[in-house]
Formats: sequence, structure tokens, C-alpha cells
Amino acid sequence: MQETTQLAGVIAPVLTPFAEDGGPDADRFIEHCEWLLEEGCNALAPFGTTSEAPSLGLDERMELLEDLIDAGIDPARLMPGTGTPSLADTIVLTQHAVDLGCGGVLVLPPYFFKQPDTEGLFRYYAELIEEVGDNRLRLYLYHIPQMTAVPITAELIDRLVNAFPEEVVGLKDSSGDMSNTLSLMDAFPDLAFFPASESFLLEGMKRGAAGCISATANVQARAIRALYEGVDAADAAQQQERVAAVRAAILKAPTIPGLKALIAHYRNDPQWLIVRPPLVAMEPAEQLRFAEDLKRDMDFTLTIADVA
Amino acid sequence: MQETTQLAGVIAPVLTPFAEDGGPDADRFIEHCEWLLEEGCNALAPFGTTSEAPSLGLDERMELLEDLIDAGIDPARLMPGTGTPSLADTIVLTQHAVDLGCGGVLVLPPYFFKQPDTEGLFRYYAELIEEVGDNRLRLYLYHIPQMTAVPITAELIDRLVNAFPEEVVGLKDSSGDMSNTLSLMDAFPDLAFFPASESFLLEGMKRGAAGCISATANVQARAIRALYEGVDAADAAQQQERVAAVRAAILKAPTIPGLKALIAHYRNDPQWLIVRPPLVAMEPAEQLRFAEDLKRDMDFTLTIADVA
Repeated sequence: MQETTQLAGVIAPVLTPFAEDGGPDADRFIEHCEWLLEEGCNALAPFGTTSEAPSLGLDERMELLEDLIDAGIDPARLMPGTGTPSLADTIVLTQHAVDLGCGGVLVLPPYFFKQPDTEGLFRYYAELIEEVGDNRLRLYLYHIPQMTAVPITAELIDRLVNAFPEEVVGLKDSSGDMSNTLSLMDAFPDLAFFPASESFLLEGMKRGAAGCISATANVQARAIRALYEGVDAADAAQQQERVAAVRAAILKAPTIPGLKALIAHYRNDPQWLIVRPPLVAMEPAEQLRFAEDLKRDMDFTLTIADVA
Repeated sequence: MQETTQLAGVIAPVLTPFAEDGGPDADRFIEHCEWLLEEGCNALAPFGTTSEAPSLGLDERMELLEDLIDAGIDPARLMPGTGTPSLADTIVLTQHAVDLGCGGVLVLPPYFFKQPDTEGLFRYYAELIEEVGDNRLRLYLYHIPQMTAVPITAELIDRLVNAFPEEVVGLKDSSGDMSNTLSLMDAFPDLAFFPASESFLLEGMKRGAAGCISATANVQARAIRALYEGVDAADAAQQQERVAAVRAAILKAPTIPGLKALIAHYRNDPQWLIVRPPLVAMEPAEQLRFAEDLKRDMDFTLTIADVA
């Protein structure tokens, strides 16, 4: 139901910084989130793929979310990822997020067992919604088949929105297949759709998308927000071309190590390079070349003022 | 190092029974494990794929393991699965199993991020072993690419056994590709290999396998154990043919719902039908037909005495 959906616009699936000992770094996490809101993000999606959420422990996820809210970030602007392969753990994370007043939750399908029946996926989400049993729950389905190999199909969405029209309010489409997003948008006009890329934001907004939840919003939120606000501007097509080109240049590197390398570079903070296994961090020389290439080829720079 | 490996023979990745309310049923779980040991299992692998482990919560897994040991099952005969997509959670589960004295742990690779570098997978297992930091740890790698899409390659094994020869002691190969198992057995003669099927047990044993960890050991452990003990018997080939044929007939049904249906049928206990989403249970009529077909076609029956 569009009228009950509060989350829209440019949403960053925020990077998770780690300390030298491998644990999450709450201070840098809060600092990055506050900076992203200042840069123009309408909302934040902690614990998405870009956040390395599947590499975080259950307790770490809950503590970091509490840290954000304790730091003064409005929970209504948060859409944490709460999906895990386990219904039991997903209930714990989802209930926790709802109890904290989060504006929404982004929920992966269970992704260990492959080729599940639609019936089994329906029951997974249905039991989640029923067990949480809270009318504040706003659930966004998370379609990212290149990682899960478990797609969110139109048949599944249809069953869920019919059974839970108040709770199932949107979908993030990380498939990279804009024709899939547009087809689902036509089929489910009441849902809020977030493509995972800003490269089709203009077209998406004109067709009724709610915004985008994009990895590269971690480093170009300002430009994406300007495009979001200016879809009718005279230079909208040029702005769209520019953010798409920057995105494509950034994604020549492995996504998460590359984004962390840019934050590390412009914060002059090598700790930001750290990723959790199975990901592998960029080496400092590689990081420098990456940042310099982007500056030379794309005129890409970041100014990160200390907001703490 | 073969000499430090205590686990060998017929190992069942034990089914996890659930109660009507969806929670794990500890009493039925203990009863099933005790029965499997009476049936001839040399050891048990709770929290494998067949156990629906990825569908269990972290707390549920730890509590069920404690329940088994509290019930008197020797932890030296247990090889619990402790792998999750998160290094943090995997450390918690692994440390817990080692602290309880488990004979080994079976560890999936992190399976959310696809096509990880071998370096990243190596660091994942290396950090796990170093963080647990316990010389009692005996780690079995779990290769099940049809679910994880993240294979355990020879290159990864080579790096791990060179770095951690005392801790990395074996591998379960659930690929169903016996040529892969045999190739790895030739390359790593000091490791304990467990194919996930009893259908090649005779050939595997002759080539040096340690046994098998097979889903269908949940319902034909007695026959598999007889074959394991009688690889030099005159009728070994016939025994092998028989267990392979029974396995093939059982696996015409979806593996986990089908195995649970057989336990439910021969225990006359419909609660055993319950699976967790995203799996879907067999309907009672389907269950009856499945059990009757197996009895008629394969002369397959089970006698389950109450061992409690």
C-alpha cells in the first residue's frame, strides 16, 4: 500500500567498517551513516549485501543497529536487512528492528536450500510475518538471485501481497535486470520498488519506482539525490548519464572492497580497507591507483568533512 | 593426519524433528539419535544439510547439541555442522562444539557471496581455526556445491592442510561426483574422506575412504554398517547393490521430507512429517504411498523399537 510506505528516495546499503581485530567498528559506522544522511540519502539500509551483512554475527547486527539509533539517527529512516537462511534467526532480527521503530526491513529469501517450492517460500515469509505479529512491520522483499540463487518471483509476490497487504510493501531488485523490475512494477502498482542501481533512476521514477537502494550511493549519494529531486530538470538526462558512468567506473573494481577503498582514500583512513572473509581487501597500492584512475577518468572525488 | 582422526565409518547427518509449534523437538531428536547409534551408526553428524541446519537458529543448534550430550551420547562420536555464512557465528558454534568435546566439526564455506577468491576462503577457515585456538579442534570441510555454489577446491584444501595439518583432518564430499572424491583422495592421502552416499562405499573403502556421511543413513544405517564391516565378504557386491538401490528409490522423493515421512510412518508418529520452511512436508496420503511403494518395490521396512 503506497500510502503506508514512508521509505522512498535514495537509500544507501551502508558499508560496515571493521576494526583491526576484525570486529565491527561502531564509531566509524555511525560516522559513515551520519555523513550519508548529510550527503542526501533519504534513508539508510544497514545490513544489506554491500554491508557484508551475511558475514556479520546475529549479535553484531543487533548491536550496530542499536548503536545507530542511540547516536540519534531516526529509526523511521532505517531499513535494515534482517534476512538469514534461518527462519528462527530472521524472526529474531526482524522483531528487534520493528521493536526499535525501524521504518522497514529488507528480507532475503532463505538461501541455503536451492529451488524451493513457491509454497515453501510463501510459508517462510508468512510465518515470519505471523510470528513477529506486529502491525508496525513493513517488509521489503530482497531479490538478488546472483547471490541467493533463490529468486523472488511474481507468483510469490502475488501470494504475499494478497495475504499480507499491510506488511509486504515493497521490493528491492538487485538482479540488474531493469526489464524484470519494470515488469514487476506493472504487475504490482501498489508496491514500492527500489532498483539496486541509480543507472536507471530517471526511467524508473517516471515509471513509478520509489527510488533506489544502490551500493554506489555510499560514494555518490549527493549526485543521485540531485537526480532524484530533479527528474523534470532540463539537464536530468545528462545527470543520469553522469551518475551511471561514475557507477560503471567504480564497479570495474570488486564492489565492496572498491567502495571501502574509496572511503579509506578520501578519509585518509586505511582501516576502512578492511573487509571480512570471504571478501579480500584492496592492497594500498591498488587502492591508490583505483582512486587516481577515477579522479582522472571521471573527475571523481569526495570531500568528507568530519561530522562527528 | 589419519592418526589423530577418531571419526570413521557410517555417519548419519541426523534429521531434526520439529514440534507442532515449529520449535525443535529435543525428545524426539535424542530418541532418533540413540536409535541411529543402536542401528549401527559409528557416529552422528547433527546439523548437516539433512538436519535442516541452515533453517535452525544459532541458539537452537547449541541447545540441541547440549541436549544430546546431556542425554548421554558420547560427544567424541559427534561431528556437528557449525558452518554459517558468517565467520562470527561460525566461530561461536565451533567453539561451543569443541568445548563440549565433540570429535569433529563439519564446516560449510561461507555461502552468500559467490565466486569468492581462494584467498578469501582460506582466510575464512584460517581465522576460524585461529580464533577458536583450541588444539582439540578437528575440522572437516564440507563440499556441497549444489547448495552453496561455493566449492571446496583442491587448491583451497592444499593451502589449509599445509597451514593447519593438525586441525584440518577431512572432507565430506556431497557433490555426488565420485570422480571428484577419488581425485581428492589421491591428492590428500592423509585426510579422512566421507562421500555423502553409501552407493560407492565399497569402492570408496577400497580406495581409502574413511566411511560415508549419508542422508539415507537415517533409515538404512544397519545395512550400510553391515557393508562397511564386510567389504571383504563374499556377498559384498550384492550388499552394495542393495543399499544403492534402496537409496536410489528413497531419493525419488524430495530428500528431507521423504526421509521424515519414512520415520513418521514406521514410528506411527505424524509429527515427524514436519519440516521448516522453505521445505514443504509430504502430505499424509503421499507419505503412505511413498512408504508402501518402497515396501512393495524394494522390500523396505523399518522396525523402530522405543529406545527411550
